[in-house]
Amino acid sequence: MAFDYLSNVSDDTAEREYTEYLKSKGLAPKSERIAVGSSCGRVSMGAVYAKICSPHYHASAMDGIALSASRTFGAGETTPVTLSPDEFEWVDTGDPLPDGCDAVVMIEDVVREGDCVKLYSAAAPWQHIRQIGEDICAGEMILPGGARISPSAIGAMIAGGVTSLNVVKKPVVGIIPTGDEIIPPCENPKPGDIMEFNSSIFSAMTEQWGGEARVYPIVPDDREKLREMLSRAASECDMVILNAGSSAGRDDYSAQTIRELGEVLYHGIAMKPGKPAILGSIGPVPVLGVPGYPVSGIIVVERFLRPLIEYCSGQSFNEDEYVPARLTRAVVSGLKYKELVRVRMGSVNGRLIASPLNRGAGVVSSFMKADGIMEVPQGTEGFEAGESVTVRLLRPKKEIYGAAMCIGSHDPLIDELADMLHAAHPAEFLSSSHVGSMGGIMAVRRGEAHLAGIHLLDENDGRYNVSYLKKYFPNGGVRLVECAGRTQGIMCAKGNPKNIRCFKDLFGGGISYVNRQKGSGTRVLFDYLCAQNGLRGSSLYGYEREELTHTSVAAQLASGSGDAGMGIYSAAMMYGLDFVPVCTEQYDLLIPDHAWESPYVRHIIEILKSDEFKARLNEMGGYTLNDPGEVRCRL
Amino acid sequence: MAFDYLSNVSDDTAEREYTEYLKSKGLAPKSERIAVGSSCGRVSMGAVYAKICSPHYHASAMDGIALSASRTFGAGETTPVTLSPDEFEWVDTGDPLPDGCDAVVMIEDVVREGDCVKLYSAAAPWQHIRQIGEDICAGEMILPGGARISPSAIGAMIAGGVTSLNVVKKPVVGIIPTGDEIIPPCENPKPGDIMEFNSSIFSAMTEQWGGEARVYPIVPDDREKLREMLSRAASECDMVILNAGSSAGRDDYSAQTIRELGEVLYHGIAMKPGKPAILGSIGPVPVLGVPGYPVSGIIVVERFLRPLIEYCSGQSFNEDEYVPARLTRAVVSGLKYKELVRVRMGSVNGRLIASPLNRGAGVVSSFMKADGIMEVPQGTEGFEAGESVTVRLLRPKKEIYGAAMCIGSHDPLIDELADMLHAAHPAEFLSSSHVGSMGGIMAVRRGEAHLAGIHLLDENDGRYNVSYLKKYFPNGGVRLVECAGRTQGIMCAKGNPKNIRCFKDLFGGGISYVNRQKGSGTRVLFDYLCAQNGLRGSSLYGYEREELTHTSVAAQLASGSGDAGMGIYSAAMMYGLDFVPVCTEQYDLLIPDHAWESPYVRHIIEILKSDEFKARLNEMGGYTLNDPGEVRCRL
Repeated sequence: MAFDYLSNVSDDTAEREYTEYLKSKGLAPKSERIAVGSSCGRVSMGAVYAKICSPHYHASAMDGIALSASRTFGAGETTPVTLSPDEFEWVDTGDPLPDGCDAVVMIEDVVREGDCVKLYSAAAPWQHIRQIGEDICAGEMILPGGARISPSAIGAMIAGGVTSLNVVKKPVVGIIPTGDEIIPPCENPKPGDIMEFNSSIFSAMTEQWGGEARVYPIVPDDREKLREMLSRAASECDMVILNAGSSAGRDDYSAQTIRELGEVLYHGIAMKPGKPAILGSIGPVPVLGVPGYPVSGIIVVERFLRPLIEYCSGQSFNEDEYVPARLTRAVVSGLKYKELVRVRMGSVNGRLIASPLNRGAGVVSSFMKADGIMEVPQGTEGFEAGESVTVRLLRPKKEIYGAAMCIGSHDPLIDELADMLHAAHPAEFLSSSHVGSMGGIMAVRRGEAHLAGIHLLDENDGRYNVSYLKKYFPNGGVRLVECAGRTQGIMCAKGNPKNIRCFKDLFGGGISYVNRQKGSGTRVLFDYLCAQNGLRGSSLYGYEREELTHTSVAAQLASGSGDAGMGIYSAAMMYGLDFVPVCTEQYDLLIPDHAWESPYVRHIIEILKSDEFKARLNEMGGYTLNDPGEVRCRL
Repeated sequence: MAFDYLSNVSDDTAEREYTEYLKSKGLAPKSERIAVGSSCGRVSMGAVYAKICSPHYHASAMDGIALSASRTFGAGETTPVTLSPDEFEWVDTGDPLPDGCDAVVMIEDVVREGDCVKLYSAAAPWQHIRQIGEDICAGEMILPGGARISPSAIGAMIAGGVTSLNVVKKPVVGIIPTGDEIIPPCENPKPGDIMEFNSSIFSAMTEQWGGEARVYPIVPDDREKLREMLSRAASECDMVILNAGSSAGRDDYSAQTIRELGEVLYHGIAMKPGKPAILGSIGPVPVLGVPGYPVSGIIVVERFLRPLIEYCSGQSFNEDEYVPARLTRAVVSGLKYKELVRVRMGSVNGRLIASPLNRGAGVVSSFMKADGIMEVPQGTEGFEAGESVTVRLLRPKKEIYGAAMCIGSHDPLIDELADMLHAAHPAEFLSSSHVGSMGGIMAVRRGEAHLAGIHLLDENDGRYNVSYLKKYFPNGGVRLVECAGRTQGIMCAKGNPKNIRCFKDLFGGGISYVNRQKGSGTRVLFDYLCAQNGLRGSSLYGYEREELTHTSVAAQLASGSGDAGMGIYSAAMMYGLDFVPVCTEQYDLLIPDHAWESPYVRHIIEILKSDEFKARLNEMGGYTLNDPGEVRCRL
């Protein structure tokens, strides 16, 4: 077996060899004994046999009398049998069968005669008796080994006299965060501080897969301290994640420390994100060196630690679900590695679609938004838009089928709609992507969206949206639903230090501008205003600096790294910025006919018309509502 | 709204009205604030917004120099720009961008000249910088309300400066066991004691659905004590289960106590099992009166408490899965109620089949074995064998597809096979039903089994199994796989007090016999031996007393309620009984061709040939192994 340094081994080979290697070193599921009552969801280690029968005694199954059946033989309508008090006993349901008895006669069939009783039919031996072991017999196997324990299995074990059992022990995963710049989570980090949230992510993943997480204190970049902590974690845990921080060169440092205490099987995997992963061990304890960027870290932990946790926790029956989907955008990837691309998914007009998300390794929110992961295999340059690809699902299929895909212009009101929709209809989700108004129109045209937020100014008549629909949907098939008027303007630092009073003031010199991306309605508006005023937008410093949302423009301005940018009033308010109103524009929802009858679109329309929607927009500020939810135009 | 006593309302109406009634009384999800790090799997209560941007500072995305881009404008191959040390700053990846800088130039593009640097191309503003809010912008909605929190959402919240959040509080379900005869679980209950395992089952169910269980001490049948405990539980919990014990009349007692403290909406549901359920409340706290038999209890808790727990825990996105299946046996049911029948399921020859399990309300093991629940609607008399029915699944579909259906004669070795199969192949299960050898042959003929254990003696030639195959499979399509020879004999009490030395001694008088069911191989053997010896089986006391397995016959004998019964050596050993050997019979597996290539059958054959199988049978005793796993005959 090769012990490579900076290898480029495929993830499949690496995972297979790593697992084999660890098993040969002694990695195996462990057992622990626990009370039956707290074993739900755990996995049995070895078969469980009943110790006693259930019922553990012969019990009357009826209210009536217990007797010896042989005393009734020959009884009939014309030949009743009379029993004296010492020949029977009164019993209630559940009572133990008295000695010498082997049958119960129901109270309805008993005729009293003083202290005696008369029976007009013979009793069969063992009638109306719950016999010993009717449910479970002592010695019988109640559960095989490796079984996930259900509530009723708990009942069966207790009924079978089993009070404790061996289950697969949850493997303990030690997580060591490292790096001088790493600090514990807080609400006010200083510039340069990197908040340590990877441990929280890895802990949650570990627990989801049946392991138990133990997070160690942050270790600074000190080789001796790192070795001490790693050695301690390897002695206390069943597996260790060494989270390498994000500085260049940090990975080698980790690998060297693992090598000093144990072995490194592979350093470097032909997989992106996750290339610098280290697969090592200290004795039988796997030690995984994980890159510091959260997305790379999640991918590496899932690819290499999950199989080990599942193996050691007896949960290897968890299976991934794969579905075919139509790719919305081309994805280009390198030949030398497999790339794992996070995608958003939805079922639009009867077809599952997959829309690639931001591929940055540092963008943890992209993982949160992801519905699935698409693999671009090693040796492949990528996929074309429209190709059918296979996606591994990250959430239940029904959640994907319950999601309304909203692709288009950004407005915080879309998030509020999503919140209200899901609260009122827990099976429904609004999944939004911000690609600008034109991007939204194109997504609807390609059949990739259920709705699109748009606010596009027709430069000829100064009206919004309608003329674009006519142009891009010459054959119709869409509706435009009124949403809200919103105040667009120039956002600038609190107190307006550059003294911007109108649009033209942006061009007074000395202004650092923050722009929006091409195709966004706000960019169209900005360019329109420039043209109207005879100004050249590109002469502005920062014209090329493009942000994808109103909020991110506001965030740049609030950080002091720009002087002005166009955006909506609510974004300026969110960041306490000054705001110079320029115009009121119409933000509407474009909805294709195929989505019109869907429950989520129906519910979204209901929400648009609700008082709560009005109240929320009032609170955000800068919106005017006329007839939200009304169809403004149908083509 | 009607407050009926002993009503016969449909479960659907009752559930809908009960929920509406409780909501009108104030039942609603509650909220609690918890640390983000421990929120995985919980459900957000209200939307979560980012408090800070992530990154929260402009960070260098490369190792290189930071500078003001404007200082580089005009730089080119022939017009390099030289920067003095006060015009730039060296930065590493992740470092905060120094004041006055708005671009980073990669170290590869920097030419050093003493303390100065020379650049041969212009930098675009904001190049190679991870801008504030690239991942998450302050004020943005990170999660909508009602969202199940994933590991990456935890990362995103921490990155957004959120350290705690409101989640839906797990509703606390109080469970009150009642009854004089009820005792806590133990390994040595006395006759008449009923072990209290319902609380453990209901606790596990509660936790599976997102609630938190609190079990109260057992309350004896004392009205005052019951009222005190119920009142206490209603004040401490969000919901209460009052578990009524099993004696007749107990239910009314519960209903009266609930009525004294609150209200009873319905007492009596048109549903079997579960008819005596009580739907009540004390203020906004639902109080569910649950019958004592475990199966009835499970059905009632699932039908009426689960929707409430899911509603209050925000887990209402859990959905049941329904599949169509072919019914193996007729099911007859009453017209006055809906009946819920537990079924075993398997996919045989490309068809899902559903086989009804024991319908006794006290048989908790039948619930453990159940793969699904079939409803016989109110007003319907039942279903025919072979009808297509709809089944609600109780376990994941893939487990059902991974199950080998073994239907036929009982032998404890089948359980050992199941244990070994699942241990070696965690995705595979062996699901066995005991219907006797003839039942197994018929199940294979009807295409309802993957394999059948059989041991049928041909009275003409004294050989086992082969002639039955020829008779029942005239067109072939089956194989007979050798399994084990096993010693059949007469089991009797330890010390053999009735002095049974041979088969004929059974008929010496004064023997209470325990028989096996018709169609079982052991019954065929018994009747054959009677015929051979010129004896009349039915003259034996207890000839009509039928048990379904060797173990349950042994359990009856061990309890002293019978003197003798036929069975295999291993069953006698299990119960420490004496054993009089009668013959060695051949126990084989009948396997239809359609199942022959399936992975589980292949693996079962491998196990039959293994040393571990031999070792386990040796330990059980009474088996002789010749060529287990070999095909004895193929038709």
